[in-house]
Amino acid sequence: MTRTDSPSRRPRVVVIGCGFGGLEATRALARADVEVTLVDRTNHHLFQPLLYQVATAGLSAPAISAPIRHILRREIRRGRVTVLLGEVVDIDATAQAVVLDDGARLPYDHLIVAAGATHSYFGRDDWATHAPGLKTLADAFELRNRVLRAFEQAERHPELREQALTFAVIGGGPTGVEMAGTIAEIARHTLPGEFRRIDSRQARVVLLEGADRVLTAMPAVLSQKASEQLVRLGVEVRTGCRVTDIDAEGLSYETRQGDEVVRHRLDTRTVVWAAGVAASPLGRCLREAAGAELDRAGRVIVQPDLSLAGYPEIQVIGDLAAAMSHPAKGPPTPVPGVSPAAKQMGRLAAANVLRRLRSEATRSFRYIDYGALATIGRKAAVADVAVPMLGSLRFSGWAAWVFWLFVHIYFLIGFRNRLMVLTDWAWAYWTFQRHARVLVERPTPPTPPATPARAS
Amino acid sequence: MTRTDSPSRRPRVVVIGCGFGGLEATRALARADVEVTLVDRTNHHLFQPLLYQVATAGLSAPAISAPIRHILRREIRRGRVTVLLGEVVDIDATAQAVVLDDGARLPYDHLIVAAGATHSYFGRDDWATHAPGLKTLADAFELRNRVLRAFEQAERHPELREQALTFAVIGGGPTGVEMAGTIAEIARHTLPGEFRRIDSRQARVVLLEGADRVLTAMPAVLSQKASEQLVRLGVEVRTGCRVTDIDAEGLSYETRQGDEVVRHRLDTRTVVWAAGVAASPLGRCLREAAGAELDRAGRVIVQPDLSLAGYPEIQVIGDLAAAMSHPAKGPPTPVPGVSPAAKQMGRLAAANVLRRLRSEATRSFRYIDYGALATIGRKAAVADVAVPMLGSLRFSGWAAWVFWLFVHIYFLIGFRNRLMVLTDWAWAYWTFQRHARVLVERPTPPTPPATPARAS
Repeated sequence: MTRTDSPSRRPRVVVIGCGFGGLEATRALARADVEVTLVDRTNHHLFQPLLYQVATAGLSAPAISAPIRHILRREIRRGRVTVLLGEVVDIDATAQAVVLDDGARLPYDHLIVAAGATHSYFGRDDWATHAPGLKTLADAFELRNRVLRAFEQAERHPELREQALTFAVIGGGPTGVEMAGTIAEIARHTLPGEFRRIDSRQARVVLLEGADRVLTAMPAVLSQKASEQLVRLGVEVRTGCRVTDIDAEGLSYETRQGDEVVRHRLDTRTVVWAAGVAASPLGRCLREAAGAELDRAGRVIVQPDLSLAGYPEIQVIGDLAAAMSHPAKGPPTPVPGVSPAAKQMGRLAAANVLRRLRSEATRSFRYIDYGALATIGRKAAVADVAVPMLGSLRFSGWAAWVFWLFVHIYFLIGFRNRLMVLTDWAWAYWTFQRHARVLVERPTPPTPPATPARAS
Repeated sequence: MTRTDSPSRRPRVVVIGCGFGGLEATRALARADVEVTLVDRTNHHLFQPLLYQVATAGLSAPAISAPIRHILRREIRRGRVTVLLGEVVDIDATAQAVVLDDGARLPYDHLIVAAGATHSYFGRDDWATHAPGLKTLADAFELRNRVLRAFEQAERHPELREQALTFAVIGGGPTGVEMAGTIAEIARHTLPGEFRRIDSRQARVVLLEGADRVLTAMPAVLSQKASEQLVRLGVEVRTGCRVTDIDAEGLSYETRQGDEVVRHRLDTRTVVWAAGVAASPLGRCLREAAGAELDRAGRVIVQPDLSLAGYPEIQVIGDLAAAMSHPAKGPPTPVPGVSPAAKQMGRLAAANVLRRLRSEATRSFRYIDYGALATIGRKAAVADVAVPMLGSLRFSGWAAWVFWLFVHIYFLIGFRNRLMVLTDWAWAYWTFQRHARVLVERPTPPTPPATPARAS
C-alpha cells in the first residue's frame, strides 16, 4: 500500500498542523530515519490552554506562542524536518499527496492529520459577528478589544452604560469558566478607580450553560465548587439555558421550569462564544478523498491505531479525531479533546508510522488520563487529578490554583516563555494589574494628499 | 476671549491626543484647579521610539504601550482628569467645542491639540498597500507579518527566492536606519539554521535615501559612521535615490550621475515606508475652523507661545505644530519632530493655560536640545549629545548603543515596562533570539455548518 520499500530515498512523512499532537508527532519522527514535512497555517505553536489570558489582557501573544522553526531548529539543522507555512486545502488519498493553497502538492508515504478544531455556531454562522470564539491569537485580540472597549463605551455614553457593562459568556466549559471569571476580576480588581463616570465593579458577567452544571467533563462536586467560586468573583451562573438568538444588542435564551419554557433577554454588546467546537474542514476532505466516517462534530472516526479504514498510511490525531481509548481491560472509552490526549496520540501515530516501516504490527491507542484542571480566577480553580493506585484526588480553591499555575508553566514550550509567564503572573498577582491592556486599532489609512515633509 | 471668568465652575481644558506632548500637558494641568478631558483614538500611550522593535519581533506590543487610564489613575481618582476613547473629527473654534466621531461635542475653555503625525506618500496613496509605514501598533504588526512571511515564502517557493529575500526600506531617517539594521540582523543572526531550502543570511536589505547621506538631522560625521555600521551589518545603503514607483513586485527609483538620470529597478515584495511624514488631518480642521496657516507638511504654524493667531485659547503642540524655538539670544530656529520637543511643548502649553487663567502673559517656546540618538542594530548606534558649557559630544559604536539603551529604558513609561524591555533585550542580546516572532493570522471564519459537538 505505501511506497516505502524504495531503497533510494527516505520515507516521506507529512504532518498537517503544529498543535500539541502534530508537534509531538514531528519530534518523535525526527529521531528516526524519515523525511518529515510539517505544514501549518501559522508560524507558531500556540499554547492554547492560556489563550484566554491573552484575550483578557493578562499575557502578551508572544508569551504563549513559540515560533515553530525555533522549537524545531535542531531537527531542521540535522536535516530531518522541513517546516512549511501554508494552508492545506485538500488531501489526494489515491495519489498520496497533500494539496496546498497555491496548488502545490506534497507527496507523502505516510500522513498524520492533526488539523484540530474550530468553533461552531450550530449552523448559525451569523452569530459569529456578535459572539466571537477563542481558538487563535487573532480571536484573542478581537475579544480583548471588545472587552476593553465595552468599559470605554460605558464611560463615554451614559445611555449605553448598563448594556455596555453587561458581559455574556456562552458555554460553561473550561474556556467559558476562565473567561467569565477573568472578566469579573478585571471589572472588580483591575479597573476600579480608573474611570470617572462609571464604577467598573458594577459590571455584570453572565455565564450561560446548556447543561445543568458548569464543567460537565468534571465530577459534579467540582462543578459545584467552580460555581461557588464563580459566584464569589461576581459571575452570575445560569445553567439549563438554550441560546435562541444573538444580535448586536444582546441575546435571547430559554430555560425550562417544569414543562414550561421561559424566554429571557439579556442586553449586551459583548458576547463570548465558548460553546461549540467543530472539527477542522479537513475532516470533510478525508471523507471525500478516503471515505472517512465523521461523527456529529465533523471529527474523523479512526481505527483503534488512529489510522483510516482502508488507508493505513493516513492517521488522524488530536481534536480532529473521534478516537477511542483501548485500555488493557474493560471496554473502549471515548478520548476527550484535551492537550494531553493530543500529545499521546501524536506519539503513538509517530511510533505506528515507524512500526509500519519495519513491517511490524501497529498498536491501539490507549489514553492515560492524568486528570482535569480548570481555573476560575485569582486563587480559584478546581482539580481532579489521577493518582496511580489511589484513584483520583479532587480539590479546589487556592491549592488547586497553585497546582494549575505550576502545571501550566511547566508545560509551556521553552524556558524563555515560562520565565515570561511567571514574571507576568507574579506581577499581576501583587498589583492586580494586567499588562496587556492594549487596543490595537485598525491600520491607519494613508493621509490624504499633503505636500512632502521630507524627500525620500 | 475665553469664558474662564465664571466663578461657578472650574475651567475646562480639552487635550486631543495622548502622545508625548498630550500626556505631558495633561499631567501638568492635573496639578492645577482645572477640569481636564483627554481624548485619544486608542486606549494606550505608545512609546513610539521603540515601535520598530515591535515591527521586527524584538518586543511584544504591551512592552511599549501603557494603558492611558493606568498612567493617569491617580489624577482620575482625584477627580482631575477624564479620559475618553474617541476620535476627534472636527473642532468648532467659534463655539469652543471639539466634535467626536459620534457627533458628541466637548465644550472647552482651553484646547491643546496634540494629534501628531502619520505617514505621507507624497500624493501616491496607492503605494500604501505595497509599502506600509510605521506609526501605530497595527502598522508594526503588519510589518512584522510581512518581514516574517517573506522568509517563509522564500522557503516554500524556490522560484520567488531572490525577490522574497530582498527587503527595501525607503527613507534613511532614524526609523529607516533602525528597520534596515534590524532586518539585516534577523537574517544574519536570528534565523540561520531554521530553514532547509534557503540560507537566510543571503537576504539583501537595501536602504534608499533621497539625500546624499542617512540621518540628515545629525552631523555629517555621524551619518558616515551610521552608514559604515549599516554596511557592516550587511545593509546596502543607497543615497541620492528618488523613488518613482512601488508595486506588488518591487520598486523603481532614479539616481543622478552628473546630468544624467539613471533608472533602477529592485525586485522585492517587502517594502518599508519610512520616508514621508504628514501632520494629522486635524491641522486642516484648524485651518477651516480658525484660519490656521499650515506648512507644506500640513503642520500648523503657531505663535511663539504655541497658540493660534486670533485664538489664544487654542494651542497646538508636538508633531502637528510647526513651532519655532525662541532662544534667549539669536534668531528663532525650527523645532524638530522628536519626543523631547513634544514633551517640552506639552509642559509649556499647560503652563500657558494656567498663566492665561491668572491673566498673566504667556511665554514663548524655547526648545532645549539634549542631542540626538539613533540605533542601527546590535552594538551599533550614533549619538550627538549636548553637554552644557562644553558643546556637543559625538560618539558611535558600542558606547553609543549602551547609551541609547539606557536612555530609552529610562524614558519608558512605568517601572513594569522598563523591566520587561530590559529582560527582553538581555535575552535577545545573549541568545540572538527575538521572542515576538508571531504571525497573527486573520480571524478564523466560522466553520461551515456542522452538527453540534456539545449543546450550549
